[in-house]
Amino acid sequence: MKIILDGSSLSLDALWSVACEGAEVEIAPEALERLEESRRLVYDLADDDVPIYGFNTGVGWNKDRHITTKFFKFYNENLVRSHTLGMEPEASEAEVRAAMAIRLNCLLRGHTGIQPMIAQRYADFLNLRIHPVLPERGSVGEADISVLSHIGIAMIGEGDVIYKGTRMTSSEAHARTDLLPVDLGPKDGLAIVSSNAFGAAQGALVLHDLLSLVDQADLIYATSLEGLNGNVSPLDIKVNALRDLPGQYISTSRVREYLEGSYVNEPDPNRPLQDPLSYLGGACVHGSLRDALEYVTKFMLIQMNTSDDNPCLLLAERRIVSCSNFEVTTLATGFEMLGTVLSHVSRMSCYRMIRMANPVLTGLPRFLTPEETHVHAFGALQKSFALMDTEIRHLSNPSTADFLPLAGGMEDHASNLPHVVQRIRKIVDNLKYILGMEMMHAAQALTLRRQRDGDLRLGKGTEPAYYAFRKSVPWYDRDRNLSADIRSAYELVRSGQLLQEANKALGI
Amino acid sequence: MKIILDGSSLSLDALWSVACEGAEVEIAPEALERLEESRRLVYDLADDDVPIYGFNTGVGWNKDRHITTKFFKFYNENLVRSHTLGMEPEASEAEVRAAMAIRLNCLLRGHTGIQPMIAQRYADFLNLRIHPVLPERGSVGEADISVLSHIGIAMIGEGDVIYKGTRMTSSEAHARTDLLPVDLGPKDGLAIVSSNAFGAAQGALVLHDLLSLVDQADLIYATSLEGLNGNVSPLDIKVNALRDLPGQYISTSRVREYLEGSYVNEPDPNRPLQDPLSYLGGACVHGSLRDALEYVTKFMLIQMNTSDDNPCLLLAERRIVSCSNFEVTTLATGFEMLGTVLSHVSRMSCYRMIRMANPVLTGLPRFLTPEETHVHAFGALQKSFALMDTEIRHLSNPSTADFLPLAGGMEDHASNLPHVVQRIRKIVDNLKYILGMEMMHAAQALTLRRQRDGDLRLGKGTEPAYYAFRKSVPWYDRDRNLSADIRSAYELVRSGQLLQEANKALGI
Amino acid sequence: MKIILDGSSLSLDALWSVACEGAEVEIAPEALERLEESRRLVYDLADDDVPIYGFNTGVGWNKDRHITTKFFKFYNENLVRSHTLGMEPEASEAEVRAAMAIRLNCLLRGHTGIQPMIAQRYADFLNLRIHPVLPERGSVGEADISVLSHIGIAMIGEGDVIYKGTRMTSSEAHARTDLLPVDLGPKDGLAIVSSNAFGAAQGALVLHDLLSLVDQADLIYATSLEGLNGNVSPLDIKVNALRDLPGQYISTSRVREYLEGSYVNEPDPNRPLQDPLSYLGGACVHGSLRDALEYVTKFMLIQMNTSDDNPCLLLAERRIVSCSNFEVTTLATGFEMLGTVLSHVSRMSCYRMIRMANPVLTGLPRFLTPEETHVHAFGALQKSFALMDTEIRHLSNPSTADFLPLAGGMEDHASNLPHVVQRIRKIVDNLKYILGMEMMHAAQALTLRRQRDGDLRLGKGTEPAYYAFRKSVPWYDRDRNLSADIRSAYELVRSGQLLQEANKALGI
Amino acid sequence: MKIILDGSSLSLDALWSVACEGAEVEIAPEALERLEESRRLVYDLADDDVPIYGFNTGVGWNKDRHITTKFFKFYNENLVRSHTLGMEPEASEAEVRAAMAIRLNCLLRGHTGIQPMIAQRYADFLNLRIHPVLPERGSVGEADISVLSHIGIAMIGEGDVIYKGTRMTSSEAHARTDLLPVDLGPKDGLAIVSSNAFGAAQGALVLHDLLSLVDQADLIYATSLEGLNGNVSPLDIKVNALRDLPGQYISTSRVREYLEGSYVNEPDPNRPLQDPLSYLGGACVHGSLRDALEYVTKFMLIQMNTSDDNPCLLLAERRIVSCSNFEVTTLATGFEMLGTVLSHVSRMSCYRMIRMANPVLTGLPRFLTPEETHVHAFGALQKSFALMDTEIRHLSNPSTADFLPLAGGMEDHASNLPHVVQRIRKIVDNLKYILGMEMMHAAQALTLRRQRDGDLRLGKGTEPAYYAFRKSVPWYDRDRNLSADIRSAYELVRSGQLLQEANKALGI
Repeated sequence: MKIILDGSSLSLDALWSVACEGAEVEIAPEALERLEESRRLVYDLADDDVPIYGFNTGVGWNKDRHITTKFFKFYNENLVRSHTLGMEPEASEAEVRAAMAIRLNCLLRGHTGIQPMIAQRYADFLNLRIHPVLPERGSVGEADISVLSHIGIAMIGEGDVIYKGTRMTSSEAHARTDLLPVDLGPKDGLAIVSSNAFGAAQGALVLHDLLSLVDQADLIYATSLEGLNGNVSPLDIKVNALRDLPGQYISTSRVREYLEGSYVNEPDPNRPLQDPLSYLGGACVHGSLRDALEYVTKFMLIQMNTSDDNPCLLLAERRIVSCSNFEVTTLATGFEMLGTVLSHVSRMSCYRMIRMANPVLTGLPRFLTPEETHVHAFGALQKSFALMDTEIRHLSNPSTADFLPLAGGMEDHASNLPHVVQRIRKIVDNLKYILGMEMMHAAQALTLRRQRDGDLRLGKGTEPAYYAFRKSVPWYDRDRNLSADIRSAYELVRSGQLLQEANKALGI
Repeated sequence: MKIILDGSSLSLDALWSVACEGAEVEIAPEALERLEESRRLVYDLADDDVPIYGFNTGVGWNKDRHITTKFFKFYNENLVRSHTLGMEPEASEAEVRAAMAIRLNCLLRGHTGIQPMIAQRYADFLNLRIHPVLPERGSVGEADISVLSHIGIAMIGEGDVIYKGTRMTSSEAHARTDLLPVDLGPKDGLAIVSSNAFGAAQGALVLHDLLSLVDQADLIYATSLEGLNGNVSPLDIKVNALRDLPGQYISTSRVREYLEGSYVNEPDPNRPLQDPLSYLGGACVHGSLRDALEYVTKFMLIQMNTSDDNPCLLLAERRIVSCSNFEVTTLATGFEMLGTVLSHVSRMSCYRMIRMANPVLTGLPRFLTPEETHVHAFGALQKSFALMDTEIRHLSNPSTADFLPLAGGMEDHASNLPHVVQRIRKIVDNLKYILGMEMMHAAQALTLRRQRDGDLRLGKGTEPAYYAFRKSVPWYDRDRNLSADIRSAYELVRSGQLLQEANKALGI
Repeated sequence: MKIILDGSSLSLDALWSVACEGAEVEIAPEALERLEESRRLVYDLADDDVPIYGFNTGVGWNKDRHITTKFFKFYNENLVRSHTLGMEPEASEAEVRAAMAIRLNCLLRGHTGIQPMIAQRYADFLNLRIHPVLPERGSVGEADISVLSHIGIAMIGEGDVIYKGTRMTSSEAHARTDLLPVDLGPKDGLAIVSSNAFGAAQGALVLHDLLSLVDQADLIYATSLEGLNGNVSPLDIKVNALRDLPGQYISTSRVREYLEGSYVNEPDPNRPLQDPLSYLGGACVHGSLRDALEYVTKFMLIQMNTSDDNPCLLLAERRIVSCSNFEVTTLATGFEMLGTVLSHVSRMSCYRMIRMANPVLTGLPRFLTPEETHVHAFGALQKSFALMDTEIRHLSNPSTADFLPLAGGMEDHASNLPHVVQRIRKIVDNLKYILGMEMMHAAQALTLRRQRDGDLRLGKGTEPAYYAFRKSVPWYDRDRNLSADIRSAYELVRSGQLLQEANKALGI
Repeated sequence: MKIILDGSSLSLDALWSVACEGAEVEIAPEALERLEESRRLVYDLADDDVPIYGFNTGVGWNKDRHITTKFFKFYNENLVRSHTLGMEPEASEAEVRAAMAIRLNCLLRGHTGIQPMIAQRYADFLNLRIHPVLPERGSVGEADISVLSHIGIAMIGEGDVIYKGTRMTSSEAHARTDLLPVDLGPKDGLAIVSSNAFGAAQGALVLHDLLSLVDQADLIYATSLEGLNGNVSPLDIKVNALRDLPGQYISTSRVREYLEGSYVNEPDPNRPLQDPLSYLGGACVHGSLRDALEYVTKFMLIQMNTSDDNPCLLLAERRIVSCSNFEVTTLATGFEMLGTVLSHVSRMSCYRMIRMANPVLTGLPRFLTPEETHVHAFGALQKSFALMDTEIRHLSNPSTADFLPLAGGMEDHASNLPHVVQRIRKIVDNLKYILGMEMMHAAQALTLRRQRDGDLRLGKGTEPAYYAFRKSVPWYDRDRNLSADIRSAYELVRSGQLLQEANKALGI
């Protein structure tokens, strides 16, 4: 698989392929041309003695310093070295790949003026599987200078990389691949480090993950509705159509499809008129997640396909302009919103489990035990998902605007994008545990119902999900170590397998 | 002025007219017809013994109770009375008007089945200026049952109202206007209280306010740029166009227009290559506010023009469906996002003031004092805006997902929409103080520059703003009580007058 | 009543008398002597050309400016004027009185060097009931310079005051009381403004309030236990003694005493072995509040009885020392802790009400209705306390460390003490609503029990509380406007009347 | 080394020895006797048909279930199994040891009624180095049932353990050590799991760490003062004595001692009258940390040396009482307070670094560069500590009161103690990075001063610290990868080595 990068059409799916599935990249020829032109323009402007931030001047508080030609390489290497700072843990290789792909794609817009061969080097690293070691913590998101510098360090043959899965020095990896370290020319240091590509990379992978997780949440919610013997009327297409909320419409439709053919669509005199709100409004709140995701995805794609360079080179007008295109406040605050919506999604899932343990609502035994006197079943389990939810609630507190004024007061704004994204990533991980436990409940309730009521028809999507789940997590017939079950359920959610089974059945 | 309500075309501006400018409302004839039809349908269904939530059954945990015909009036009045609860402070009359207008408009969709004459009564109250007294605190936003019940109470002639500005009992107001209290029939109680119209009302007014405040923030930022003698290159249209961020594009364009003709567009060798980020990225972050506002406004308009009733009546299909259309999580979490973005806007304004007090950056005296030895000027003032900003940071902490499971666990979700909106309203108020103080700084810097540099050309928009400001807040030539100046500046921002002057000059 | 101030023995009770009960103050003679001596020392040091911060130098960023003798009055008046800034709302008169009493008491330590007659003027203002108008918002708590300056302004005959309940200009109040405005000499400006007396004043009043509210919470909790027919075993003195937690020991003892003689001390086969944790651990969590209160009170008394001046005059050694005694981080973070504990107290009270609405636990009708079919009773009321609790949860988010670096970076720390205290004050107010509603539930349950079970013996403390409550809030026999009941219950809690009745019965 | 456990004298230092230094434990003979007596009492009471929670009844929502004698072993094993649940990561071995030591010590109070040989088994596990694998996440702190059950599982020969550093099954470890798995009798299941020993263990280790870190913070602050050439007057013993704040007194004394003999004690005409507040008040805020630590330590020692069992056995009175002694709200909210204070400590350290990069304040080159034109030095480093501080600010948000009502509403309170402690532990780790970076700044400034000013006398404590630091982190003479320096500085702080050197010099 090979992804063509042209600076304007990188999608989340394509990025995922590069980052997580090892797809190679290729620079579109017209983009390469733009790079050459831009580089020439930079030199022309410098010849005219135009002061260019980070080219013939210092950066940040040092922007009043003039850089002379003979120190270009020295200065740029030092710039990269002195910006190489960060704290554990290390970013995953997938995140590093995504960062390189995004940075490369944005460079291809032609507004940077980087040496074309350095741009090419991103592609080399991706295709040869040379992955610089990046610390995850180091950036305040304005831009990710201190993290991205680790890529620069690797390009000049210093620092560490993971080459085909093995950690080694960058120079060793160069030797093994017959690459020569690059020579940094004017502006190249800044070009490598001055970008939000790292925060964008982590964010894009989280988004891609969430776009599938919301489908999965719908599926598990559908199974819970069956576990409860709940009402499907809130899923009515007419009712949801007139409400006009885009996300709600999609999620209720999804759930309806997963439940096609299920016994819950049949009238049942024992079913109460309305279920608790965690059931009644479950798909609506998943819809809110879809609404928020649409907003954030829109701005993420802009981020992945435009230049966030400062200064910005304008080829047609042969100008270079100091600007503020590295501001990513919309994106960072959008991610904060995702955290808030996800805390609703999490809490509702928890309440659905709490309700499912209640015989008054289900007509099933307390805590879904198979044997009331001697098996504890899912009583203490509530503590596990409650804690996960408490953590999510805490992680959803905002931090984007908590920055310190740095660099002699010159850098008195920040977005904290990587930090914000890392929190959301953690929320998503916790949510996978919670959804896994919800599936444990839903499946347990269904097994109990089937034992009691004989042949119970499940939905077109929920039935394959139920069977797929049971392959990994057997029915809880007597007390056992539940940590292992939680782990299995979580892994299933992570793998997306239940969703694949359900979607296959639906032909999606 | 008269606004025609038809259930589908209520805009924020029209709502503002009704709420704040005393516009009257009129129900579109076709909407009235829908009401009649819906009412008939409810009775037809009840005749068929369909159990209808809140019609012939109780609500909430009591949904298992059956209501018989002879108790309809008694039951519905009791429902309204027992839901009449809340805590001070009282909502403003504008907010009450907005709530009635929104509720009426949504009723006109025809999905409620309310008595048509009760719908008409909302219009009567609005047009006669009978404004029920509503406590601002009482609802968890799912829906605003306990707040809206105060409208129901007033309609049956109980409780208090403000009639043409005077507080009196509802029965007194009825007497003075020759209105007869309404008789609540089946479902009318639920129809009145079961809606998010109160949270939507408070939210819509905040949004309307913010949509104008963001313009004003751009204008004051433009003036600050002049106060600093800052760089305009980040406002370059080409550079912002290629970044493709919608809000950023609008705000930078605005600022550019306000600065047309200003001295800051002229080259100045003393101007540094780049300003602090609070200046460099100011318009971008205002753009992020515009991005977020666009998102929230979209969902607010949906909220104001669709039915959030449960159950929902489907006329064409002659069905009544239990549903979850009262979920407003997208809206509530959207408002939370506004809070986060506003904390960026606030903090950047504060840092701009802090920078403007610094001679190194401005070439003006410390704290913008007119007399270095004896006048303290704006030193201690920093504490005032810093505190306002700290409050905003605190107010931006989320609370939408902090709810308790109520009604025997049946109500185990909530959005806290009114509470969230009230926090954002408070943030907006604080921001007006901060922007007022920024204008104090910008104007002081400009006066100092003019005294020093003689005839300094200001921008097409900033010049009238500067002069309008100076009419209320004279130049700070010696130490005086600054609380009064802060208040005047705040009032100016509240009035929108600076913006009006600037826009007039620009022909906007 | 007259309180003697000597700089070292001001208690919370004495402060309350001065602030809220109009007690007069008198300066202890030995303290006055210290003042005279300190003043002489300041002049002696200045004669020796020792640079003294705020005496012969500027303050803050202007500390590098030298102040010459002939400008002393001019400089100090300007200092006060330029620091007079803040935003609405105004502080209450009680808070202003408390601030003046605390500032005066701390001045009496003799470490300030203020003119003795200005110290005396605090006493004059207090005793004549001249209360300067102070904005509540203006200080970042490091110290309360911009708020306290409003006292300085009033002392020089400018700005507004409340004199015997009437608002007027300060000069008018001076005229009416035959006072002459003071002449500010060297260091007097700083002496007046540079103190945390305002935050301490607001905090001390909140603490005093809380120290009584925790008793009241115990009493209402005791009544709830009776309402539930709950277990008293967790109150066992032996069990609590061995746990060794000081607060828990006090609260469980209190509750036990209030319940002396109650029917809940009798065995009852229908009573379950253990109650929900909100009952089981209620007194323990009140104990945690006591633990936290002890901590904060300890540091508050230190704050009220030591000098927080900078610089600090050392009489015995005839030195003046720049110092950091104005740091109040322990106090501010202690108040933050109070917020967190109070959110537990609030949440448990809410859950007790939720449980009391549940027939399974109480054996009483759902929502404590007197008539199951037609009276809704306390169903919707849950939304009211749930909202109050959500607000408390939000108010308990910390903000003490959210400050901006001011004054050219010189003021790069702050405690936000007043802001923190104001949040806790708001929490306390909300908690009064919640406790009022808990008492509504407890009393309603008791009335229902009495109607059903005839003569039910209540506790020695709870019985008088119950009857006192019923005088203001009659038994809820049919649906009525509950906003009014909530208000009455809240007012009762505010007044402390229930507690007085109970304590009288116990001879406390 | 052997620690005698008697139920009442376990100190933080002794716990540290057991947890981190491999000390063995021994049960005091009189404690063993109490265990035997208690066990007999439990049987006697059960013979009298007293229902005993968790003995002859179920637990939680199942407390209404009766357990008959023949199912004792079956029931208790199932109880442990079904409570074995939690999520990664695993607790450290030190934490597991601490949890076992604390649980054992509390059992020795004699209020549990556990089989004595099971109590002995804790000692066996500790002394044989059999460490059950515990998931860190699983408990809501009320009590740590689902985490501690993993110890129970290991005791009956199931699940995994780390034996002398190697992971294996519990049965394998039993085989290797010739231990036989225990037989759980009545109440043993509850006795093992129903305790807050896990949260207490994690908390106690954090406290022990912090009690040393605050000393280290004082030392590094002292070095920073030297780096700045700052004022020592705020450290004056007289001035701090009269302020009467215990923590402030200790920290200022410490810093004074570390600076004994330093050049900063000499007068210097170039030194300004006052430093920025981050310097002026640094030791005071460390004092606030000491104040908070004293509070939390007090309650931690209570927790480690009293019984938190429910029910509670009273030997002397031969009773068993249901109680609420497992409530740890004081402790959990105390830890929350620590988080808030630590965010002050962190922020001030960051601001000290920011100031140290400023030539105007230090008279040293910008960013402490050794060569203004070509070496970037510590410019970008600011992003690293700023991010660490932002994370700390986020981690300091409270979560103790964010719980869900579990077990059919029976468990409607929680403290989240382990989660809270884990957050504080993370804060402490981040703070070590920040203090490490502060030391990088302080040392760099001192090296620069020494190069410029020749022989500069350092303090008695700071001098050895400086030299010890330079052994690991050489002087920054040209740009290099700073991630490595950050890591080294962090490791130094973690090791406590600087402090040891300084204290040795002072004879502490």
